[in-house]
Amino acid sequence: MEKIKPRTLSGFMELLPARQAQMERIMQTLRDTYALYGFTPLDTPLIESSEVLLAKGGGETEKQIYRFTKGDSDLSLRFDLTVPLAKYVALNYGQLTFPFRRFQIGKVYRGERAQRGRFREFYQADIDVIGDGALDIISEAEIPSIIYKTFTALGLTRFKIRINNRKVLGGFFEILGLSEQAGDVMRTIDKLEKIGADKVREILTTDFAVPAATADELLAFLATPGGTEGILDALEGYRGRNERFDQGADELRTVAGYMTAFGVPADHFEIDLTIARGLDYYTGTVYETAMVDHPEIGSICSGGRYDNLAEYYTDKKLPGVGISIGLTRLFYVLGEQGYLNDGMNTAPADVLILPMTDDLAPAISLATALRGEGVRTQLYGENKKFKAKVGYADKLGIPYVIFLGEDEIAQNIVAVKDMATGEQTKDRFEDAVARIKAGLAERAQGAVILDTKN
Amino acid sequence: MEKIKPRTLSGFMELLPARQAQMERIMQTLRDTYALYGFTPLDTPLIESSEVLLAKGGGETEKQIYRFTKGDSDLSLRFDLTVPLAKYVALNYGQLTFPFRRFQIGKVYRGERAQRGRFREFYQADIDVIGDGALDIISEAEIPSIIYKTFTALGLTRFKIRINNRKVLGGFFEILGLSEQAGDVMRTIDKLEKIGADKVREILTTDFAVPAATADELLAFLATPGGTEGILDALEGYRGRNERFDQGADELRTVAGYMTAFGVPADHFEIDLTIARGLDYYTGTVYETAMVDHPEIGSICSGGRYDNLAEYYTDKKLPGVGISIGLTRLFYVLGEQGYLNDGMNTAPADVLILPMTDDLAPAISLATALRGEGVRTQLYGENKKFKAKVGYADKLGIPYVIFLGEDEIAQNIVAVKDMATGEQTKDRFEDAVARIKAGLAERAQGAVILDTKN
Repeated sequence: MEKIKPRTLSGFMELLPARQAQMERIMQTLRDTYALYGFTPLDTPLIESSEVLLAKGGGETEKQIYRFTKGDSDLSLRFDLTVPLAKYVALNYGQLTFPFRRFQIGKVYRGERAQRGRFREFYQADIDVIGDGALDIISEAEIPSIIYKTFTALGLTRFKIRINNRKVLGGFFEILGLSEQAGDVMRTIDKLEKIGADKVREILTTDFAVPAATADELLAFLATPGGTEGILDALEGYRGRNERFDQGADELRTVAGYMTAFGVPADHFEIDLTIARGLDYYTGTVYETAMVDHPEIGSICSGGRYDNLAEYYTDKKLPGVGISIGLTRLFYVLGEQGYLNDGMNTAPADVLILPMTDDLAPAISLATALRGEGVRTQLYGENKKFKAKVGYADKLGIPYVIFLGEDEIAQNIVAVKDMATGEQTKDRFEDAVARIKAGLAERAQGAVILDTKN
Repeated sequence: MEKIKPRTLSGFMELLPARQAQMERIMQTLRDTYALYGFTPLDTPLIESSEVLLAKGGGETEKQIYRFTKGDSDLSLRFDLTVPLAKYVALNYGQLTFPFRRFQIGKVYRGERAQRGRFREFYQADIDVIGDGALDIISEAEIPSIIYKTFTALGLTRFKIRINNRKVLGGFFEILGLSEQAGDVMRTIDKLEKIGADKVREILTTDFAVPAATADELLAFLATPGGTEGILDALEGYRGRNERFDQGADELRTVAGYMTAFGVPADHFEIDLTIARGLDYYTGTVYETAMVDHPEIGSICSGGRYDNLAEYYTDKKLPGVGISIGLTRLFYVLGEQGYLNDGMNTAPADVLILPMTDDLAPAISLATALRGEGVRTQLYGENKKFKAKVGYADKLGIPYVIFLGEDEIAQNIVAVKDMATGEQTKDRFEDAVARIKAGLAERAQGAVILDTKN
């Protein structure tokens, strides 16, 4: 038979088993952490009607959409989890309880140019809190706590959550007389970290007709020193000149003020007036998260407050706040930078039973008993040389091998080999299980991310 | 602004939060159970090159494929998890360790005619064991144990695992001189339960030129009475007439013989000679799983042994055995038939904190502490009437509400209301946590499926 060469599309991540085990651990940690904060899991279709998905229309994104017809239907694959959430909330408004807190970890699709570290199919891990008509600032203050808990649970230590407030930026633009160019100015200062202050000044003055003195004042403002307290104090210097600015300053102070109660250490949090988050969408607090040792990676978790989640679908005002992790890209970068803990138990089983008798019933009963104890167990039944059998456990990194021969069966004991130490012990079943469980608990200590710089 | 009417495509399941929580519980139970048996999780792209995905070509399936182009690429959405597995194993052959045991729970796509209970996007939950060149019968014997453990863990009690062996059927066809029509005969008897013996006899004799006496002998064989032992004994009566038949009979005896050691109770398992599983693909043991009280639903978990997983991609002989659960349809049916446990805690949080003071810091600190204890906690910060706040917990079924006012803060206690009993207690934090955890553990007792018939 002629063979088709098997291949996976470029831009689509497909992991080998050990790497996949690490990815699964990350996803489980995210699910557990989001649940701890009272978010409910959601799962929406990958395919939506194009009319619904592209209601907002236009923009760079639309070109990247996977769009096709099936029968009479014009369909598209989702390109983020926010539009499907907007649809879901508008569609099920009457059956939801607000504030509605949901998380979703799911694949999204963008036909980007293929290049290293860019993916066309990738996971986003999103949480959002949606209010009905209003949403208290407390939800904005809670977000950094969720970011902190999430990355800490994953094992990352050297990261910093940066926040800003769009009202502060927008209000300051108004103070400077830049209301008309506000969108362009916002998008330009968003590039500050990437292109530097000189280049930003040049773009502002040349492309957007910002007077040089105004550009300087803006850049000086954005570089306000003094840390959280210093910046909050500096903002007071402008009080009374612009209502929106004042409101933003109050919100920043409220959010920063609750950080200790929310358990976010001061060294993991800062106000950064340069954070703009280009999207027009955001209206209040905005968030970015940087890896301290890898600023070049950019933000690993971003989001913000918005006023109208579902304006394309409903007249209901649905303000919200949300953050998103680009999980596939993050996982790729963590792997490239050596952050993934390869000492983690990624084996498919904790115990491999090697039956040494023709009748497999005693080995099967042992496997059943171990599984009953919650121990992940494989039974090796292939007709191979002894060395190949042990080699199987070795290659997969299975921590324990149990040899079950006539002697052990007769004496009602099990011979357990710890594959890491080579140590072999013979025990009664209960004692063997206890020792295996203790060993596994010890191995499970490490997190999936190993932040060695700490 | 003109609004687009939000809608979800027909044939695509999108659940409300409480139902989704039940679905998540099912998926977590599947992941845990499959892991217990030493299967490693895999995640392959939803999109594959059409050339690769449709290597086998033809058939009813191809018409249902979601196929489209993006740029120069001819792409298709996967329609099952088996073809992607075949691709994966052929592609990564050198980096995998065999037998390769993987599970995958993922969405697949088939553009079927839309009708109630039929889905175009649906989850399959698959496990497979793939051998390199050979695979011992023990893997075939282990499958019913996994099926048993899975459905038992989900809470289902009244189900039966039916097995047969394709060598027995194929060998018997040869004994009857039906080798030429074997495929047609196989597919016809697959319909036995649905259309009955008379109709099967009619099709066999009319459409496939099976002599009436032969059809009768076949139907009598398929109806062999006597349960597992009776059928195994009856098969001995044919021994020596056909090698394939004899081998199948031996395999059936081996598989059945290990059931007790694998922990499968006799009343949950039977040999059923009528199980054919239409696909040409299968070559050894085949499996179906029936709900005792709902035979009309058909098999809820099926699969079998095959000899060549990846023949379209590689010359390597990769025999395997696998089973699949059509999860979305199963979930739908369970819901329709009232099997889903609506007493399960589907709330997004276990505790709702209602701050009764202007300064939210004490309430936030309490939330942080509860989350530190692993208690899923929401903080209610909206400016609403007291009744609306309690109503929020009520609507979502959040089990506990904590009121935190000046008095409680001053006395360093928390007032916890058990929403089910209405009982309110005031405790120190540690005691409140202990009581909440005990209550939650009790609530968590029930499985997600409530098999009330038992």
